[in-house]
Parts: sequence; structure tokens; C-alpha cells
Amino acid sequence: MSNFFHQNVRFVLVEPSHPGNIGAVARAIKTMGFSQLVLVNPRRFPDPEATARASGADDVLEKCMVVNSLQEAISDCEHVIGTSVRDRQISWPVATPKETAIKIQGFLKSGSENSPEKAMKNNQLQSDDFPNIAVLFGRERTGLENHELDHAQWQIRIPANDEYNSLNLASAVQIIAYELNCALIDIDMLNQEEVEADKTKLEKRQRLATHGEMQGFYQHLEETLLELDFIKTNPPTKLLRKIIRLYNRNNVSFEELQILRGILSATQQKIKH
Amino acid sequence: MSNFFHQNVRFVLVEPSHPGNIGAVARAIKTMGFSQLVLVNPRRFPDPEATARASGADDVLEKCMVVNSLQEAISDCEHVIGTSVRDRQISWPVATPKETAIKIQGFLKSGSENSPEKAMKNNQLQSDDFPNIAVLFGRERTGLENHELDHAQWQIRIPANDEYNSLNLASAVQIIAYELNCALIDIDMLNQEEVEADKTKLEKRQRLATHGEMQGFYQHLEETLLELDFIKTNPPTKLLRKIIRLYNRNNVSFEELQILRGILSATQQKIKH
Repeated sequence: MSNFFHQNVRFVLVEPSHPGNIGAVARAIKTMGFSQLVLVNPRRFPDPEATARASGADDVLEKCMVVNSLQEAISDCEHVIGTSVRDRQISWPVATPKETAIKIQGFLKSGSENSPEKAMKNNQLQSDDFPNIAVLFGRERTGLENHELDHAQWQIRIPANDEYNSLNLASAVQIIAYELNCALIDIDMLNQEEVEADKTKLEKRQRLATHGEMQGFYQHLEETLLELDFIKTNPPTKLLRKIIRLYNRNNVSFEELQILRGILSATQQKIKH
Repeated sequence: MSNFFHQNVRFVLVEPSHPGNIGAVARAIKTMGFSQLVLVNPRRFPDPEATARASGADDVLEKCMVVNSLQEAISDCEHVIGTSVRDRQISWPVATPKETAIKIQGFLKSGSENSPEKAMKNNQLQSDDFPNIAVLFGRERTGLENHELDHAQWQIRIPANDEYNSLNLASAVQIIAYELNCALIDIDMLNQEEVEADKTKLEKRQRLATHGEMQGFYQHLEETLLELDFIKTNPPTKLLRKIIRLYNRNNVSFEELQILRGILSATQQKIKH
């Protein structure tokens, strides 16, 4: 049962420039019991410098996923969390690494009901009975762009020196992996009976909409708002982004999403007639 | 008052081999608001590699103390804490980084009684009215020797992957500096002026929609959904209650509420035409 929940947490590096940093990140997450690393458009990878800095965590590098877009990296995730050291004009909800670890612990503890039947049948919980969680890290110099942070439910702000907050990429990952490990060790420790008890609760709860499903909803929403002449321009205006952020920072269940899409469809039909 | 207590915490590296690590440690502690670095018999220092890796934290390197013995490094400290990833034959008391941070917070908060009169007279506290605390880090490969750990009141054990606990020296320092910073920020915050400043920040932040405003929104929503023939009956159906619950369990800002109501109004207008 050790490191059971760690498999559901994915570290996503968006356009890292230096292969050395990728290696250092692999090492950082492995020391904390994690193994899921995704690289979005790395400048150089694979690279001997990455392997050298990984020093013993090359297995993490070997099985890491390399993708072309952030969407691909997170589409099957129920929770997406950003990281940032900058203050932003538009305010995202912010949490410390500790607060984040506690929230994620909660998500995993209560689980998702993707496949309660399967869990019941086997009488054994699998990793994919629990939600996938992605933590996004931006470029070394410029971090995440606003449209990337739009995908996040909240952003993690690491408490740092106001006058010098230049945390190395691997150091930021290290701190967050450390906090998550502290929180997940606690629930890994739950003995089988407690997990069993939790399972019953699980069955009653509803699974959340995945990131991909939410994207489908946002497209539908944009389409409808254009038809309503509520927004005039395409690409999305600031207004649309504000609404998206409202939903993103909250948990929307799959059932709720279906209701929201139902309203959009009803609106579109009315407009046609 | 910011970073007031940080000056009382000293990071001591015992016989570091790689100058790059010294630079990375300087950077790690500076990001967390610390500046006191002591090197005991470094193999190479100063060194261009140290300066390169410090990237902006060269002030910490410039004023760091280089000494010949651990004794010199810690003689004026009231508290000395070791770090270790190995299990030792002789058992030292062990604490996690979090437990350590809370203990150190306690030491600094209650202060030292070295000079209570001075503090009373000036009505102004100085750093040296509080105890000095040293955290010791061992060699990259072999850590601290037992006779060195003898100086420590306890040792910090960072929770790590049992099968791969090869934390980089700077990563270990980063995690501990991070935990200490979290704990010390709390007591730095005691200063009244900063509390006042925070209050102003709060006021600038967006206010949430009030309960009454949310109720108005729900009425507007119900009205619109009826006009859309999305819901058929009045009083509210189970469907409407589900949507209400989605918004209720989340924080909606006043601005977001206005956008949502704008969409409803646009929908109603379209229906009329």
C-alpha cells in the first residue's frame, strides 16, 4: 500500500529549457515517492545532461511522457493545479503548498467513483479508482502563461523572500513534492479496513467532470454566448475567461456538467426557433 | 520586522565537496529569506562554480563564514540541530522538518533571556536578544559523522522514498529552509504595522456576492430556465436545486455574479425577439 496514491499525482513541466532541470526534477519527485512526469514541448529531451542530473532517477525519465500541448498532458485529470511566484493582474485563487497538500489528500481520500463496481468486484482498490491530479510548472524564466493558468483550479504560491524569489525549477518541484508526500504518507498509512470503509462512502459520491469534459463545456458555452450576442468576438474575450475561471476553480461533478450543457442546448434550440 | 527572526537561523555545511552545491544552497536559503551560511572546511571555496550556481545570491556567499571546525561554527548557538537520512545505530531523537520548524518557532517566539533588561530599556528588540540556532548538513556522500551529530539536540529526518532517498544537498536545505520560513513568517507577522498593511490588501480584493444577491440570481435563473422550457414546473425541480447547490458550495465574487446575470438577461432578450 506504500506510495499507492502517489501514482495519481502527475508533475507537468511546460516547455522546460534546460535538460539539466528535467533531470533534477526527476530526482526530486522520485525522492518523494512520485514517478509520473510529463513534459510539454521540452526544448531538448532526451539529453545526456538530463540523465546525468537525474542520478539514479533515470527510470522516471525513461517512462516520462512527452507531449505537444498542455491539453494532452491533463485531459484525463479531474484536478489541475498551477504554480506561480508572480502576482497576476487577474486574481486566481491562491493556496500555499501545505493547503494544497491537504486539499489533494482530501480528493484522494474520498476518491472518485469512476468504477465503483470494479472496486467492489475485486474487493481491491486500484489507482484508477481515484482521480488523477496534475500539478503544472511553467518555464524557468517566465513561468506559466495566463491562458495556461486558466486550466488550473487554483495556483500554488510558495511562501518566499519578497526581494528574491528566484526558486530554481527543481527546488519548487522539490518543495511541493515534499508537502504532497507528507500528506499522502498519512493516507497510505490508512489500513485496509479504513479504505474499505471509505469505499462505501465512495460509492455514494459522484465522480467529477474531467478536464477534457470541462473543455467541451467551455466550447459549448462560448458557442452559445456568441449566438446570444453576449460576447461579440472570437477568440474568447476577457469576460469568457472570467466565467471559465469561476468553474475551473471549483469542482463540477459530471452530473452537474450534464445539467449545465443541457441548459446551453435548450438555449441554442430556442434561438433557432 | 519582515525576516526579523530569519537572521537567527544559521545553515552550517560540514565539509561540502562540490562548490556548485554551496552556490545552490546559498540560493535555496536566500529564496526563503535566510542569509546566514557557514562552511566548515569546504574542499573548494571560493570558486566560480559556486558563484554561478548561486545566481543572484552571491551576497550570501560573500558574507558567509568559513571555519576550520564545527565547534567554531556553532559555539554561540543556543540550539543545534542535525540532519540525516541514514538510520543510525545509536538512536538520536528524531523530528520531521515540520516538527522542527514548530520547535524553532517556539524558541524564537519566547525569546532568550540573555538580556531581558536591554530589551525592556530600548523598547526595541534586536536580533541578538533571541537565541541563535544552527542547522547542520553533512557531506554529500556520507553525511554527518556520529561525533558531529553528538552536538545536536535532535536530528531532522526528511520523510522520503524508502527505496530512493538520495536527496541532493541543496534540495535537503531547500525543504528545511522552506519549513522554517513558513513557521517564522507566522511570528514575523505579529508586527502590527504589517497586519494593518494586510488589511488594506484585503479591501482591494474582490468582495464575494452576498447571500441575498445569490438568491436574486437563483430567481433570475429559474425564470430564465422556465422561459427556455428547460424546466417545466414551478416550484423548483430537483434539477434546479442541483444547480443551486453547485453555486452555493463555491464562492462566487460579485463581479462573476454580474456576468452570470448578464448571460441570463441576454438569453431572455433573445427569447423575446
